[in-house]
Amino acid sequence: MSSRFEVTILGSSSATPTSRRFPTAQLLNVSERFFLIDCGEGAQIQLRRYKIRFQRINHIFISHLHGDHYLGLMGLISSMHLLGRKKELVIYSPKGLQEIVDIQLKISATVLNYPVKWVELNPDVPEVIYEDSQLSVTTIILNHRIPCCGFLFREKKKLLSLDKARITEDKVPVEGFFSLKSGLDFKDQSGRIFRSVDYTLPQSQPRSYAFCSDTRFDPKVAEQIAGVKLLYHEATFLHELLDRAEKTAHSTAKEAGIIAKTAEVGKLVIGHFSVRYNDMEPLLAEAKSEFPETDIAEEGKVFQV
Amino acid sequence: MSSRFEVTILGSSSATPTSRRFPTAQLLNVSERFFLIDCGEGAQIQLRRYKIRFQRINHIFISHLHGDHYLGLMGLISSMHLLGRKKELVIYSPKGLQEIVDIQLKISATVLNYPVKWVELNPDVPEVIYEDSQLSVTTIILNHRIPCCGFLFREKKKLLSLDKARITEDKVPVEGFFSLKSGLDFKDQSGRIFRSVDYTLPQSQPRSYAFCSDTRFDPKVAEQIAGVKLLYHEATFLHELLDRAEKTAHSTAKEAGIIAKTAEVGKLVIGHFSVRYNDMEPLLAEAKSEFPETDIAEEGKVFQV
Repeated sequence: MSSRFEVTILGSSSATPTSRRFPTAQLLNVSERFFLIDCGEGAQIQLRRYKIRFQRINHIFISHLHGDHYLGLMGLISSMHLLGRKKELVIYSPKGLQEIVDIQLKISATVLNYPVKWVELNPDVPEVIYEDSQLSVTTIILNHRIPCCGFLFREKKKLLSLDKARITEDKVPVEGFFSLKSGLDFKDQSGRIFRSVDYTLPQSQPRSYAFCSDTRFDPKVAEQIAGVKLLYHEATFLHELLDRAEKTAHSTAKEAGIIAKTAEVGKLVIGHFSVRYNDMEPLLAEAKSEFPETDIAEEGKVFQV
Repeated sequence: MSSRFEVTILGSSSATPTSRRFPTAQLLNVSERFFLIDCGEGAQIQLRRYKIRFQRINHIFISHLHGDHYLGLMGLISSMHLLGRKKELVIYSPKGLQEIVDIQLKISATVLNYPVKWVELNPDVPEVIYEDSQLSVTTIILNHRIPCCGFLFREKKKLLSLDKARITEDKVPVEGFFSLKSGLDFKDQSGRIFRSVDYTLPQSQPRSYAFCSDTRFDPKVAEQIAGVKLLYHEATFLHELLDRAEKTAHSTAKEAGIIAKTAEVGKLVIGHFSVRYNDMEPLLAEAKSEFPETDIAEEGKVFQV
């Protein structure tokens, strides 16, 4: 079985919370590594609600410094401290967030029990900001009223699995295994060639997830996320409010669908809904008219990649 | 009927929210004037949950700058702005909060649609910080790890109501009415004396509410709130954790009861419970052992004064 690669929606509202919706926050679980993406007010409450042990989060990615995307961070940092965290926490954010946090720590006379490492995002150029043996995270340059980055999480190619039956049958020498698993053909001392494709099992494509919020409609975003398996794209308004979307540097549901179609993604999830909407079905229908494989972000929903 | 004087509990947890409890926030309604006392993370969510129109809040009192008492403020200020507020908002707080808010407004490139007036509290001396025709608010000097003020809301004495039957019967001259209502005796031109007590109806005592959180046990607090009708006093721990209470500058439930008894208050409400407690009954029982007229703060509970 494949390891986990799943996104849990903690908040789907834009601007302000409502009685049913929280501001933006998501948890990405990649093989039990936990990444928090944005941290709107109440994110720690949502983490508790969905029984996610938040001390397991070691990396927090903040897209931009509008309150509905980061106001829950100070509380989460503080709770991690009060509940005894010792492990380093890495926070990725456009410039300014460290200053906001540090002044609050100073005024409350708090010295955290654990180190925080701040990584300042460059809002002008996509950069690889995180990398481990399984995964890389690259920023996506978004187009909003203030500096704003999306995040592209991409699984690395793994070694292929050997087709043990055929290996045994054809007596492939052990010293060829690593080449075959790496996708390379192997030539033994006699000059016989073993093709990787013949001795390995078909592998699924590496999984990937792109988070794009907040942003106005921008085809450059589509270029950066071409072929991604799962795309979360903001869809603050219905297209009838295009004027309002343009004025506030947000996207409509139709525009989110166009981005998904242009980028040929596997699946689209829309969210960051204006508080004016109680029923999200019209937003879903509008995005689907451009890109049928679309779903709606709702608190507690889990999307498997 | 008497006008409203009631406290709604929006949050009763200390330090961090739990899945059932929010950090400190309360709404005081005095004759449809709305005062917010502390504003922990998620206060705006709680205001919505209890259908309190938060644009009606014109005064916010912040006791101190530990996150569990103010982290919901930035979101509330921001939502008031996004939802079109024009009216002035007055915020009372120890030094530092304006700096915390201003830097966040600056970094998010937000210019509020409405004026905020900041009133810096003096944490060393009780002061009258608010006054209108019905009510005064005086700070209470608390004893915590950082500068911290409680708040004493006290109804002003109103004019007495005339006993119309007796006024008519004894033909009291109209020019004496104001003196009688003010509690003064009146002498008419012939020298006849009309005693206020004989021509007015008995009046209930002015109502009052004291908010005392966070604080270690301190008899000086009792002096400042002597005779108050309703007292909210923090009771973070059971008395078996007195060491912990002293170390963190908090009170035990027993100590809260002693303060209520010493100050001879009408009724005590305890709150600000440590997240270690799931069942608050032992805390209630402990406070009651000192002061029987005690109740527990719980989200959504309304206490009439």
